[in-house]
Amino acid sequence: MSARTGMLLVVSGPSGSGKTTLCRRLADSGEVRYSISCTTRSPRPGEVNGRDYHFLTRAEFESKLAAGEFLEHAEVHGNLYGSLKSEVLEHIASGLDVVMDIDVQGADQVRDCTDPGIRRAFVDLFVKPPSEVELLTRLSGRGTDSVEVISLRMKNALEEMKHWEKYTYLLVSASRDDDFGRFLSLLNAERMRVGRILG
Amino acid sequence: MSARTGMLLVVSGPSGSGKTTLCRRLADSGEVRYSISCTTRSPRPGEVNGRDYHFLTRAEFESKLAAGEFLEHAEVHGNLYGSLKSEVLEHIASGLDVVMDIDVQGADQVRDCTDPGIRRAFVDLFVKPPSEVELLTRLSGRGTDSVEVISLRMKNALEEMKHWEKYTYLLVSASRDDDFGRFLSLLNAERMRVGRILG
Repeated sequence: MSARTGMLLVVSGPSGSGKTTLCRRLADSGEVRYSISCTTRSPRPGEVNGRDYHFLTRAEFESKLAAGEFLEHAEVHGNLYGSLKSEVLEHIASGLDVVMDIDVQGADQVRDCTDPGIRRAFVDLFVKPPSEVELLTRLSGRGTDSVEVISLRMKNALEEMKHWEKYTYLLVSASRDDDFGRFLSLLNAERMRVGRILG
Repeated sequence: MSARTGMLLVVSGPSGSGKTTLCRRLADSGEVRYSISCTTRSPRPGEVNGRDYHFLTRAEFESKLAAGEFLEHAEVHGNLYGSLKSEVLEHIASGLDVVMDIDVQGADQVRDCTDPGIRRAFVDLFVKPPSEVELLTRLSGRGTDSVEVISLRMKNALEEMKHWEKYTYLLVSASRDDDFGRFLSLLNAERMRVGRILG
């Protein structure tokens, strides 16, 4: 192992881009740590605290939020979600790379973070589906959803896709294995960056 | 193929780092074009004009030099060597990536080039041997050279190695296949750069 500090790889992309699968596979390969979000929503059956999420009460979440402990956060359907700065900083200080799978608003918040450790570690990737037709196919799921639901998903995905130019890297999804190969390439190349090696 | 313009990948490193093997292998794989240097030295048996070098008379070389046609040039043992800006610009304009295997002084010249096409395409890599002991082994060759010759090579290599911090990427050589894998990663990652895709 080199003495370099880790990187924070922020990955965004619309539903149907395959970004979550990519991030999970990278974490499962042992190459990186997956950032575990905090949430105020209740655990679903099978979800484990500290593995799937850090489950917090709303009071706990809001107290951390007021203390500026979140790198990014959002409220979705009445539940709060967020990533703790301390968790990311601990991993990168010990030379581990962290992958964070968040939407464009979350990525904006991380990009704007002024913490020098985060700024140095930060790199971002946008994952795009290969085409709108393919995106529609992927968002249509198993054909059990209504046209309205699918249309809304498609609208949201197209809206999210407008933001790719803000990112350092763009991965246009092809096959799962090809995508993963390019994702690994990005990680390996960033590990060779002199700026990171010098710290 | 995407509509992106090509990149200019400048690779430096001391003798014994394996950089030339890496560049040749990348070019042989069809992934990139190898930049062919001009030289005023005479062709050696088997060398082909336009493949190994562009062989020029000193008058031809000096006339191009005066016209500012070289991206970088140097005089070595009384012979002039240089890379033509036009050759690189043609390749990158047609979306081809170019690899250039040059010493740190040559890389300094390319890095200082003010041509906007070159500046946009430029990325540089320094290849370092895994250790000084391994470097000495590699530079000792087949054991037929004198201690003085080997010492001079080692001195030059150590001098060249002082410059790695100027580069964007550092590859610390391990095995040939591992090195090549990381070299390809770098190429693939740079191809995913939004800055390059936007042109």
